[in-house]
Amino acid sequence: MTLLVQKFGGSSVSDVDAIRRVAQRVVATRESGASVAVVVSAMGDTTDDLLDLASQVSPNGPAERELDMLLTAGERISMALLAMAISDLGTPARSFTGQQAGMRTDSSHGRARLLDVTPARVAKALQRGEVAIVAGFQGVSDEEDITTLGRGGSDTTAVALAAALNADVCEIYTDVDGLYTADPRIVPSASRVTRITIEETLEMAAHGAKILHLRAVEYARRFGVPLHVRSSFSDQEGTWILVDRPLTGAQTPGPTTRHTPHSATDPRPSEDPMEDPIISGIAHDRSLAKVTVVGIPDRPGGASQVIGAVATAGVNIDMIVQNVSTSPDGLSDISFTLPEVDGAAAVAALRELQHDLGMADVLYTSHVGKLSLIGAGLRSNPAVAQRMFTALAEAGINIEMISTSEIRISVITDQDVLEDAVRAVHSAFRLDAEAEAVIYGGTGR
Amino acid sequence: MTLLVQKFGGSSVSDVDAIRRVAQRVVATRESGASVAVVVSAMGDTTDDLLDLASQVSPNGPAERELDMLLTAGERISMALLAMAISDLGTPARSFTGQQAGMRTDSSHGRARLLDVTPARVAKALQRGEVAIVAGFQGVSDEEDITTLGRGGSDTTAVALAAALNADVCEIYTDVDGLYTADPRIVPSASRVTRITIEETLEMAAHGAKILHLRAVEYARRFGVPLHVRSSFSDQEGTWILVDRPLTGAQTPGPTTRHTPHSATDPRPSEDPMEDPIISGIAHDRSLAKVTVVGIPDRPGGASQVIGAVATAGVNIDMIVQNVSTSPDGLSDISFTLPEVDGAAAVAALRELQHDLGMADVLYTSHVGKLSLIGAGLRSNPAVAQRMFTALAEAGINIEMISTSEIRISVITDQDVLEDAVRAVHSAFRLDAEAEAVIYGGTGR
Repeated sequence: MTLLVQKFGGSSVSDVDAIRRVAQRVVATRESGASVAVVVSAMGDTTDDLLDLASQVSPNGPAERELDMLLTAGERISMALLAMAISDLGTPARSFTGQQAGMRTDSSHGRARLLDVTPARVAKALQRGEVAIVAGFQGVSDEEDITTLGRGGSDTTAVALAAALNADVCEIYTDVDGLYTADPRIVPSASRVTRITIEETLEMAAHGAKILHLRAVEYARRFGVPLHVRSSFSDQEGTWILVDRPLTGAQTPGPTTRHTPHSATDPRPSEDPMEDPIISGIAHDRSLAKVTVVGIPDRPGGASQVIGAVATAGVNIDMIVQNVSTSPDGLSDISFTLPEVDGAAAVAALRELQHDLGMADVLYTSHVGKLSLIGAGLRSNPAVAQRMFTALAEAGINIEMISTSEIRISVITDQDVLEDAVRAVHSAFRLDAEAEAVIYGGTGR
Repeated sequence: MTLLVQKFGGSSVSDVDAIRRVAQRVVATRESGASVAVVVSAMGDTTDDLLDLASQVSPNGPAERELDMLLTAGERISMALLAMAISDLGTPARSFTGQQAGMRTDSSHGRARLLDVTPARVAKALQRGEVAIVAGFQGVSDEEDITTLGRGGSDTTAVALAAALNADVCEIYTDVDGLYTADPRIVPSASRVTRITIEETLEMAAHGAKILHLRAVEYARRFGVPLHVRSSFSDQEGTWILVDRPLTGAQTPGPTTRHTPHSATDPRPSEDPMEDPIISGIAHDRSLAKVTVVGIPDRPGGASQVIGAVATAGVNIDMIVQNVSTSPDGLSDISFTLPEVDGAAAVAALRELQHDLGMADVLYTSHVGKLSLIGAGLRSNPAVAQRMFTALAEAGINIEMISTSEIRISVITDQDVLEDAVRAVHSAFRLDAEAEAVIYGGTGR
């Protein structure tokens, strides 16, 4: 029997009416003959309301363990209500906390990592023909303390559950109907992507697309879980994110059965294996800042010391760029981007070591923009990069940094011109809605 | 070191300010040198709000298991916020769900019974000097399903925790400052009781006093837990409910150390062991209905069949009265009171068996009133009953049924005259506030 995991975010269960709509959708899926496990987030503003209460009772900042205890009440409410609503329609349903669903994590409160997923109770409920509702975002540590998975947590729960149950697909329901070739609020002509590879989605998520969290995409890639991102407000198909094969060593069944429809209720697209798109789409990110360390003696270990100092300060680094030294004094510069919230810590750490490392200066720019062009065609086609840089030049946009990977070209620009840059590149690659076989784009949700 | 369990009900944690006030009280207790475990209910109207959501998503009535999952979110929120508020004042605090606190129950959702209480994690937290906050009302079944204890659940949690931890006292904080000789809303001159025995409190709770739930009092009696009922809005002492000795077989340390103050922070009253009051107080109950089965053949087994039929229908019976048969045809009547909500079910069950059991008729009166006079003096003093009946007669109140125990006399009256009856008896026994050594009275909370 086909097994689906359906994940509904907070906006899909924002109130009683929304919960009843989701219940109807789940029941319709179940009645089509598929087994259904549902992962649900907290209702609408619940999490924000709870955070507000927490800051009121603890002006000095709430204890992390207690904050996890508090916030997990949110999914407890939404999942119990959804189970009731489904049962009320005559379909048996049962809700499970992260702990009951076997979501074992480390004990890093607020940002716990999954260590083991053993959803035996969920599997049993499915075998009995029940709809299993699992709380997103939460788990339990070895010390039996309640943990939360941090940002992107509910998507990660859904993908992890789909992997552990060997589900045929993990459907991510959201308030938009899929991935777009660029953020439709910036590029109104952006088109919806029908299929994309997981690697391209990974680059999208890593470089600013917000519709799916990077961590959930990484998990899906690792365990070979096909994703289907679609709207909870319509029945039309969204974007299929397909995996060729799980990474070696991932403990999930091989991919051989994943691309052959095997039942009338098979939820996967019936067309042929996906074609190779030239360009997937454009992601952008405005949460970054930039640091340039000037005048590092050009000798082995220089970059390591700079990045090491920043890493020791607990700062996550995004892109790193260092060019070959061409200066007569043998000094080079190294630049990196990082989350803007970490900017002050990184600069402080570097200034402390400025003398020891022999750096001339540390320059800091808050609020840079990053544009990333993503697609399978990039690795074999230098004309893509040329067309991208030309489009930006013609739009009068200065490129401050460039970084590339096999399937991505990223540029750093002034944040004020980022939206112009997205539109210029989108247009240059003819990613408008009339075009076919063209992919991606995140909304700012 | 002295160990206190402090229980705060929903009205004591109704909002952020109330939670911060409770936090200050807990911290003050902790700083006086005592160890403190706190049991907390859901905030103010949370439970009602959640029940409202449940009825909206499931018009056919919510599934019991899911209702427990939903409602337990309430204490999760209040306990996490209280732990944060206490930590914010510089005192380490840690919250525990019913499961984490070792509250093992049977799997009767909505009305689970405690099977085992093993608060190892709570004890460890206390040993570390932390304040332990435990969710009231909730537990976990052998199947690891979340359960709730039903009415009086948080009081029961507090008493059970106090017993398992061998606490010196279980303080029940509420919105009134103790037990009164009668409901102050009916008898404005009612006086606050300073001490009362657990047996008298048990009769009070069983016969309509609402300040402490019967079940919690039973648990306290069984395990020899001293209770102190007091106001969360003042520092003055409330009512001490003292236990001479736990029942045989209860697994709690003997009572020998319970009445000897053994430290400067000993929370117990410093006076001599309690004196024997003549009359404890007056309880009343207006939630009952009355059934009279007329014309039962006066032979062995008649009462058993009647009560058996009702019990089989799942109805709890309150008082049962059957007088000796004096009728020439050898028929007798049997009357019993029961919760009014169960009235229809009981009558239906009896009517079904009316012919088989040879009953002439089944009479039903909804909304009767019950007045109970409670005190240690009753067992040895028939004049007490006489004075009570005389007072009622002088007030023109008809007595429909009478039932007595060693320390209680209950009468059933028309519900319309119940308050007059309470005032008449209160006055007849001079229980007004001027009197000393006089006990009890529940508010309608």
